[in-house]
Parts: sequence; C-alpha cells; structure tokens
Amino acid sequence: MASQAEYAAMRRALALAGRGLGTTSPNPVVGAVVLDIVGTVVGEGFHVKAGGPHAEVLALAAAGPRAQNGTCVVTLEPCNHTGRTPPCVQALLDAGIARVVVAVRDPFGPAAGGVEALRAAGLEVEVGVLAAEAERVNEAWLTSVRTGRPFVTWKYAASLDGRSAAVDGTSQWITGPAARADVHRLRAECDAVIVGSGTVLADDPALTVRDAPVRHGQPLRVVLDSGLRTPPTARVLDDTAPTLIFKAPGAVDGDPRLYEGAKIVTVPQAADGTGVDLHAVLAELHSRQVVSVLLEGGPRLAGSFLAAGLVDRVVGYVAPVLIGGDGLPALAGPGAPTIEAARRFRLDEITPVGPDVRLVARPVVPSAPREPAVEN
Amino acid sequence: MASQAEYAAMRRALALAGRGLGTTSPNPVVGAVVLDIVGTVVGEGFHVKAGGPHAEVLALAAAGPRAQNGTCVVTLEPCNHTGRTPPCVQALLDAGIARVVVAVRDPFGPAAGGVEALRAAGLEVEVGVLAAEAERVNEAWLTSVRTGRPFVTWKYAASLDGRSAAVDGTSQWITGPAARADVHRLRAECDAVIVGSGTVLADDPALTVRDAPVRHGQPLRVVLDSGLRTPPTARVLDDTAPTLIFKAPGAVDGDPRLYEGAKIVTVPQAADGTGVDLHAVLAELHSRQVVSVLLEGGPRLAGSFLAAGLVDRVVGYVAPVLIGGDGLPALAGPGAPTIEAARRFRLDEITPVGPDVRLVARPVVPSAPREPAVEN
Ligand SMILES: NC(=O)c1ccc[n+]([C@@H]2O[C@H](COP(=O)([O-])OP(=O)(O)OC[C@H]3O[C@@H](n4cnc5c(N)ncnc54)[C@H](OP(=O)(O)O)[C@@H]3O)[C@@H](O)[C@H]2O)c1
Ligand SMILES: NC(=O)c1ccc[n+]([C@@H]2O[C@H](COP(=O)([O-])OP(=O)(O)OC[C@H]3O[C@@H](n4cnc5c(N)ncnc54)[C@H](OP(=O)(O)O)[C@@H]3O)[C@@H](O)[C@H]2O)c1
Repeated sequence: MASQAEYAAMRRALALAGRGLGTTSPNPVVGAVVLDIVGTVVGEGFHVKAGGPHAEVLALAAAGPRAQNGTCVVTLEPCNHTGRTPPCVQALLDAGIARVVVAVRDPFGPAAGGVEALRAAGLEVEVGVLAAEAERVNEAWLTSVRTGRPFVTWKYAASLDGRSAAVDGTSQWITGPAARADVHRLRAECDAVIVGSGTVLADDPALTVRDAPVRHGQPLRVVLDSGLRTPPTARVLDDTAPTLIFKAPGAVDGDPRLYEGAKIVTVPQAADGTGVDLHAVLAELHSRQVVSVLLEGGPRLAGSFLAAGLVDRVVGYVAPVLIGGDGLPALAGPGAPTIEAARRFRLDEITPVGPDVRLVARPVVPSAPREPAVEN
Repeated sequence: MASQAEYAAMRRALALAGRGLGTTSPNPVVGAVVLDIVGTVVGEGFHVKAGGPHAEVLALAAAGPRAQNGTCVVTLEPCNHTGRTPPCVQALLDAGIARVVVAVRDPFGPAAGGVEALRAAGLEVEVGVLAAEAERVNEAWLTSVRTGRPFVTWKYAASLDGRSAAVDGTSQWITGPAARADVHRLRAECDAVIVGSGTVLADDPALTVRDAPVRHGQPLRVVLDSGLRTPPTARVLDDTAPTLIFKAPGAVDGDPRLYEGAKIVTVPQAADGTGVDLHAVLAELHSRQVVSVLLEGGPRLAGSFLAAGLVDRVVGYVAPVLIGGDGLPALAGPGAPTIEAARRFRLDEITPVGPDVRLVARPVVPSAPREPAVEN
C-alpha cells in the first residue's frame, strides 16, 4: 500500500511530467519525486528532452545524500537499459533508494524490466499508483509504443449545428481568437500536423505554430495528396517548417520537381480508392519517430481516419453560431447507418475557450495494441 | 444607490421568482423580499400562479407590522391595476413601506405605471437593481409582452458532428437518460411544444412531460402539418394532453373529422411555400395565452424558425458520438452563404448532463420589440 505522502508525491510527479509535453518526443514524459526516510520531499525532476537526463536522475541529484533509504516516486517504470543515458535502475541503486513507487510500466521492450531488476536487487517496488492519470499524461507515447503508429488527435472547429465551413467553403474564422490560440498550443504539443489536399486547396494554411510557444521546433507538416494537387505556391511549402507530401503511386497532376520545399513519399492508394492508405502513412511517420499527430484536415480525411479506427482523441471547438443546411458538415464519409452503430466516445473535458467551448473526447473502446500489453 | 442588504435581498427575490417558472403562465414570475427599517429580512414571497396572490402581497403579509417604514425589494415593477387581484401599489402603501427597489419595469401597458404611482405617493423608488438577472428569469414573459408572440426555445439533440439522426432516420436515442429527463424538465417549464409533421411521421413522439414533475398541466402539443399528414393513430392525438394541429388552407391529405383528439387551425401557407406561416402560428398561440414554446421539431422546422428570426434561445444536447456523412444534419434550410453571414449566439451555459453536454445559447441580437421598449 502506498502512503498518503507517496500519493501526494505521485500527483506532483504527474504535474512535473506534464511540463515535458511537446519537448520529450520521441521519448515519454516522466516526472519523479524523491522522499527521504520520513517521507519529506527532498528532490524533484522531470524529463525535458530526448538525450537529456531522465526524471529519476534529476530528482536523485537534487536529493543528494538524503535519498539514502528513501523512496523514489516515478510516473513511468525506471529504464533498465543503456540508451543515450545510463539505466535509471543503476542510479536508484547507487543512491541507496529503499523503495520505488511506479505509476505505469514501460511497454517498450528494451527499456522494460526495471521493476524486476529493482526487486532482484532487494528494493521494495509498488506499481499502479495513480496509473490512470499516468496513462493519460503519456497517452501519445504509450499509444505509439503499443500500436506501432502515432497517437492521432482529430481537431475540428464547428458551429453548434456541426458545420465546419459555410456554403462558400470559408471555415476561417468560425471560432474566436482564444480557440485559435488553443489550436496553436495543441500543434506545439504534437510532432506533426496532417491535412488533406482539400484543405490545402481551400484554405492554403501555413500549419505552423504561431500563437503559442514553439516547443521542440515546428511540427512536421504532412499533406495527403494522392494526385499532387498541392499548388507549388502553397504556404505549406514555405521554409518555416519541414513538410512531407504523401502521394499515390500513379500521381500525375503535379511534377515532384516543383516541390522544392517538401519531401515527397509515395504510399499505396487506400483500399477503397479514397486517397492514400492511412496505415502506410502512419507507419512511415512512426518510422520517422513521429509520436503524435494533429489531424487538422477537412471532413473527408477525418471520415477516413475514423472509419479506419485511427482516431485516439477528438478535440472539438464549438462556436455559438448556426450555419445551416448547405454548410460543410464537420465529418464526411459513409456515416453510421443507425444510432447504435455510431462511434461512441467519452467526453473527458468541457472547457469554455473565449466565446466558444472546447470538447475533448476519447473512444469508449481504445485502439487495439499490436501485441498483448505487458502485464502489471 | 441600493445597499448591500438590498442587493442580497434582490438575489433572494430572484431565486424565489425562479420557483414560479412553469406555473405562473400567462403571468410573469415575480419574487419579493421585505426588509424592516434596519435592513433585516422580515418577509418573502413569490407568485405561484395566475389568479393567486402577487409576490409583494405575500411578502408584506409575512412581514406584518414590521413592514412599517421598511423596504420592499421586488424583481418586477409592482402592478398598478386591478386585474384578478387588487393593485400591489395599494398594498405597499397600506403596509407603510417607505422605499421600493425594483429590478425591471413592467412593459405590459395596463400593469405599468407602478413606479410613478409610488413616487407620487411619496415613496422612494429605485429601479434597475440586478436588472440583467431579472430580465433572464422572466425572459419568456418579457419577450411575449414585448414582441406579441411566445418566447421560442429551440431544443435539439445532436452528435459531436452535429447530426440529429443516423442514416436510417433514427434519432432516439442519441443522448442518454439524463439529457432526456432534462428535456422533460424543459417541456414542463413551457406552455406548448411544437413539432413538424416530419417528426410526427418519423418518431411518433407523445410530447408529454413524463420524466419530470408536471407544473401546471401538460403543455399544449402543437403540430405544424400543412397537408394533414399526421396519421390519425399518432400518439400526439391521444388524450394525455391537448393538441393543436396547424394546417394550410388547401390541405387535402387528411380528413379533419379523423382528428378527434385535436383541434385543427387553418393558417396561411409560408411565403416561401415551405409549410405554414410561422408568424400566424405564433400569433394564434399568443392569443391562446401561450407565453413560451419549446421547438422540438426536426431540422427543417428549426431552419424555418431561425430564418424567420424566431428563435430566442437554443438548448443543444450534444452527445459524444460521431455519426458522419449521411446522417441527418441538426439544422436544415438554405444555410449561411459565408461565415460572416451565419447567425451568432452567445454561449450562456455549458453543463455536463450525464455523459452528454448541454449548451444554452441566445442570439447576440435579441428579437426586436413590436413597439419601443418602456424606458427605465
Ligand atoms: N473547421 C475545421 O476544423 C476545418 C479544418 C480543415 C478544413 N476545413 C474545411 O474543409 C474543407 C475541405 O474539405 P475536404 O474534406 O476536401 O478536406 P481534406 O479532408 O483536408 O482533404 C480531402 C482530400 O484529401 C485527400 N486524401 C488523401 N488521402 C485521403 C484519405 N485516405 N481519405 C480521404 N481523403 C484523402 C483526397 O484528395 P486526393 O484525391 O487529392 O488525395 C481528399 O479529397 C474546406 O472548406 C476547409 O475550409 C475545416
Ligand atoms: N435529435 C433531435 O433533436 C430531433 C428532434 C426532432 C426530430 N428529429 C429527427 O428529424 C427528422 C425529421 O426531420 P424533419 O425536418 O422532416 O422534421 P420537422 O422539421 O419536424 O418537420 C418538417 C415538416 O414540417 C412541416 N412544416 C410546417 N410548417 C413548416 C415550416 N414553416 N417550415 C418547415 N416545415 C414546416 C413540413 O411538412 P408539411 O409540408 O407536411 O407541412 C415539413 O416537411 C426525423 O428523423 C427525426 O428523428 C431529431
């Protein structure tokens, strides 16, 4: 049983972990707190960026000799392998820690096994304290490790009646400046932003982080564009951020040599013939260490991602405006034949954002792991 | 300047007034608090139902002789005419009240003039304390008096992507039991519930209050049905509540003699040929002392009410579900050509209701009064 002090320390460690969101990729976010033998906080730390020191190491350094016989409370299982840094298990042993409290285990093969190694060395280890909260703060990284593809957040802005553009196709600006700034914050937390050719042609968005602090560089801009219809003058091709265009094998419209500002990747067509194969796109992004993507495309691309079960989180900005009949629906595609067949989500957050409201929802049934999850 | 004690009393009076919602129609809701000469609360009251005693009279009765030289704090200007009850102005004079604090003036011709009468009798009168809150609690009645038509609340239930039915037309049940119970509470607060023939044909709703306490009898059920397409077996024709069917002059489909359970009213066709004329419908309901209506129709009727500028409040129940492409949009009709042209609302309430969220919005530009508003 974890003590009150250990629960409090885990809550603090989770808050610390959250500070790393947007800078640690492709690493997880991790927070750690060291308690001395009577339960007083003597050290804190969080992982800031890949290649930098791990949270436990920072917290132990802050604690110094007071870590002796103390407890280390950490949001993710301490690693047991030498990656870019030496294993944290060794650091815990060297510091003389007696007890380790872990929120969630590390599903990443090479890093896992920390709990067993610590127990083998005689330390007391407790696993699962505030596990749900720790899963949440690391949802992108955990999904990426478990499923072998990036964590996908579908962001949309819509009217009360679910329209994402007016009859003339204008979608800028349904929501107010506060919601737009919030989208930039979301972008800054993701490794890549995805749109379809339809959005590039309609809105010519720059897709860069402007209204929020940039975390670890601008996110990668990704355009799904089977036929290379993106105009060579499109803003996504400027030099403010890297850009990847996914085209289908038979693309004929554009000449790849015109796209100086971007890298062109050819992937198979989608099985149903609508655009490119999304699994291939996400696999390619995964291989490029993209852990989280923000889907900012229009209703058609969103429809394809949803139909393929590739949406892990929905972030909707709903503006108190009514567009009506011929406006563009926020979500296109075949649609649920019955209410029972519609995709169910859980509304996790409801937040006023300026004059608008932000709704955050996650699937009731989360994405299946590619292999059985590691046991706790 | 009103004192702290008077502001507190007005807040209390507003809460008391709110208790009358759903039972006072066609009268306004009113709350009153009497303070003695040192500012202590010595009496409270609220208007319960038309024909019953007014709030001031109840509060004065509770205060008894302690009202002498005291202050009466009341949410609506005291009436100066003998309706079903004697004027409140007289009651205030008889009780020896020295000062009256009023939130909003009474725009109703025959009842107005209370403030002038009190001042003429030598009392100190202050008007406008917590006026916005008092406008809100009486919005239905004030709108009805000012515009000469009932206050219209458009209620809809939709998915995150703004669909109010799946591809097969099923709309029951997008939202959960808590939202449905909340709709019954809304119904109980209104004098009438309106649907179009489309909803009757698709869903055969009973439109009665079941999951909430009935306030002053079941609301009137109203079906807008140009061609009398309502099946004679429809549930809206049962004997659980009164029903009014509005048809157009040329209706041919149904035989009015088949509609034993309902009263049939003929009104002109809408100018654009879509169904019946909504202004004529609302004028008829106004003449029947209907102060507030709940628009529970489908997307087409909602589109017509909105296009005519006849929606005073929107109550949306949004469920965390995605229906997609071919689902029925929550709002039909021509639609805004550009984002700038879309109807803007103000989001006044955002409330979780079970797994769903309720959004309450009001037009940024409220309905125009039929005559200049009475000055404060
Ligand atoms: N309010 C908002 O949040 C928001 C956000 C973005 C866009 N919009 C609005 O959405 C409209 C554009 O809508 P849209 O649906 O055309 O944009 P989109 O979803 O961004 O682009 C659709 C296009 O992407 C390409 N694509 C490639 N792979 C695909 C796949 N697997 N599934 C589906 N599409 C794939 C297809 O074109 P190819 O055949 O060329 O590959 C398809 O036509 C604009 O009016 C814009 O203003 C609104
Ligand atoms: N989720 C929800 O909140 C909700 C609520 C209600 C209904 N629904 C769904 O909505 C669907 C029905 O949609 P709907 O649009 O056909 O229903 P509706 O709006 O209730 O009915 C439309 C019909 O009302 C008649 N009408 C009379 N005067 C009108 C006027 N001035 N303007 C417009 N219509 C007028 C017209 O038929 P006549 O020519 O016969 O007069 C018109 O076809 C069903 O699938 C139902 O399940 C959903």
